[in-house]
Amino acid sequence: MSTLPFDLDDPLLAAAAWSRIAEPGDEVAGALVAHLGAPGALRWLVDQERAVLLESPLPAGSVSAQRALAAGVARWSPRLDGLDPRRELAVLERTGGTVLLPGDDRWPHRLADLGAAAPFALWVRGQPDLGAACRRSVAVVGARASTSYGEHVTAQLVAGLVDRGFTVVSGGAYGIDAVAHRAALVNGGPTVAVMAGGVDRFYPQGNHELLRRVAETGTVVAEVPPGSTPFKQRFLARNRVIAAMTAATVVVEAAWRSGALSTARRAADLLRPVGAVPGPVTSMASGGCHGLLRDGVATCVTDAAEAAELAGTVGRDAAPERAADAADAADVTDGLGDAERAVLDALPARTGTDVSALCRIAGRSLPEVLGALGLLESRGLVRSDGTQWRRVVAAVAGRVRG
Amino acid sequence: MSTLPFDLDDPLLAAAAWSRIAEPGDEVAGALVAHLGAPGALRWLVDQERAVLLESPLPAGSVSAQRALAAGVARWSPRLDGLDPRRELAVLERTGGTVLLPGDDRWPHRLADLGAAAPFALWVRGQPDLGAACRRSVAVVGARASTSYGEHVTAQLVAGLVDRGFTVVSGGAYGIDAVAHRAALVNGGPTVAVMAGGVDRFYPQGNHELLRRVAETGTVVAEVPPGSTPFKQRFLARNRVIAAMTAATVVVEAAWRSGALSTARRAADLLRPVGAVPGPVTSMASGGCHGLLRDGVATCVTDAAEAAELAGTVGRDAAPERAADAADAADVTDGLGDAERAVLDALPARTGTDVSALCRIAGRSLPEVLGALGLLESRGLVRSDGTQWRRVVAAVAGRVRG
Repeated sequence: MSTLPFDLDDPLLAAAAWSRIAEPGDEVAGALVAHLGAPGALRWLVDQERAVLLESPLPAGSVSAQRALAAGVARWSPRLDGLDPRRELAVLERTGGTVLLPGDDRWPHRLADLGAAAPFALWVRGQPDLGAACRRSVAVVGARASTSYGEHVTAQLVAGLVDRGFTVVSGGAYGIDAVAHRAALVNGGPTVAVMAGGVDRFYPQGNHELLRRVAETGTVVAEVPPGSTPFKQRFLARNRVIAAMTAATVVVEAAWRSGALSTARRAADLLRPVGAVPGPVTSMASGGCHGLLRDGVATCVTDAAEAAELAGTVGRDAAPERAADAADAADVTDGLGDAERAVLDALPARTGTDVSALCRIAGRSLPEVLGALGLLESRGLVRSDGTQWRRVVAAVAGRVRG
Repeated sequence: MSTLPFDLDDPLLAAAAWSRIAEPGDEVAGALVAHLGAPGALRWLVDQERAVLLESPLPAGSVSAQRALAAGVARWSPRLDGLDPRRELAVLERTGGTVLLPGDDRWPHRLADLGAAAPFALWVRGQPDLGAACRRSVAVVGARASTSYGEHVTAQLVAGLVDRGFTVVSGGAYGIDAVAHRAALVNGGPTVAVMAGGVDRFYPQGNHELLRRVAETGTVVAEVPPGSTPFKQRFLARNRVIAAMTAATVVVEAAWRSGALSTARRAADLLRPVGAVPGPVTSMASGGCHGLLRDGVATCVTDAAEAAELAGTVGRDAAPERAADAADAADVTDGLGDAERAVLDALPARTGTDVSALCRIAGRSLPEVLGALGLLESRGLVRSDGTQWRRVVAAVAGRVRG
């Protein structure tokens, strides 16, 4: 063969063709396309197939680059057979979808960090401006075999992220992914599902209705063209897109071999912040999260504020200090100095005591004890009948916290 | 006063006296005793109380050291009144206890890391050789308001630590501490309870029976003499002893203001490994543990092997890699290369396919596909009727892990 039935110089058709010829993340193809452009790379490949000898079109033509290129041609050529991206574009068109190319304003700019492994094109259904959607975004991913704990936490986390104006990106899988998308929809927030196969067919089948709703208000996107099967390798490749297009990745539940861990590790490789939500150590479903924490890959994330802090702008999205939490009942001894605390502790609960005994019991000097008593009295924590000092009963709270 | 009724030059009596005169962790007293010895420091203090002018016995007699010393004398002097450590030693003797001094072979040598804040003496009930007991030891501490989750995890953790020959050290408090001691006893392991008050009275009252049992086979110890009340400050000071005498500290459950966090922070200050056991983020009782993980103070610990790794000897106590866990079912694709995986994924489940179609679907060259098919066939994962290749059914497992 090697006479292709479409215009090889059309940048859209050429990029669409490359997204079919090369497997996602093929860095040799990526380098070739980056160097010659999608049309030029495609024309070169067609010519190569005709020729017997290879001549590298890449500048640093080392032997290993030559070999990689020759292996690439051997890999890509079988897919030139019957290649016609117009068919796939027509399928996409029937779903009302769009193809985004790198350089498009709507292209999520963070994908550039993937370098030669970046997608050639994005096949999009729904809201096409992924650039805007991903500006403030968090990937929320996790186990397909989620527990009700993980689902509950995901729903809370996503609700809080939507509140804070984040787009929630996930993989559309069963379990945590599905809960993340659903919670975003319920809270009226934007959500993006990144597919491992073509967007013409929502996968997995059981999430069809959910993904249809995601495509209505958010986006369903894939780097492989319609008709592509979601092979295992493509799930792993898909995970790198989720990791790369978002500002941070949070893993909610993941067993030791969960695919969500690959998303986390890809994100870490890209120096993106990674969070992991801990869970009971007795739950296998949290084992992978705990592994990420142990390995130092992930920061411990327990709520939306902490997830937002990972993904957000310093200052704007800083999580509140826990000590300031309103839920945390203030201790009567807050703001007291060491001497005041010591004197308060030393005061018996029921009987009174004089100042010199207080010095002995508290292990403080006379001036310290007198000063402390003054401050404690002004706070209403102690009282005196002239010589004997005693505690005011409410002050017992906060005592003896071992 | 200032004529003490006992022999100030007796090292035991003098150290016992200092453990009563100065509050735990009083670094000025510690420096003084380190410099002059307990008898010398005591004699100096008695002389000071008589004199009006202070002359520093410490070498670097800066103004601030002078001031600290003057403040110390003011703090310590009230407790010279009626001081007689022979009474406290008699009380200890009635319980069958022992006093350990620094330098004793049975003294837990790690306490030296506390420097001037190290205890003057240890008042011990039960097995007196704390040096031996703490050689291989882990502090297991946590919230008094523990949950059944935390108690379950503590029991598992301690059982595993005892198995591995570790002494379990804790604070004898309600909740996690009590479960830690109890689990050690049940598993026939050594355990040490460090008290905030005197060892003559087991505190809290509700743990009396438990602490009595700890003293039978393990050790109950305090740095304050019998008769001392467990003031709040002394709990914090006690926590530093727990942190210092053990090889590592593990916090099982701790709310945001739990005293167990102070033990963890003290341990971290001493550059001792700190572990925190995660729990459900919905549980307040794990909030403090998650905080330690977030702040990077603690390593995530999910079982005894990981706790042992923190506290143990490199090599001997390394936790097993999770991927090698027997519980983790092996995947049929384990050990396959990328090309083999891609070809296996590309093979349809029911129908057969020929080699050239496989090249196209898998995105691999002919030699790669032929090589992969050979290896897969030798593993019994694929078979062929001559031209058509198909997967062997069991090989479906492990496919599509998103």
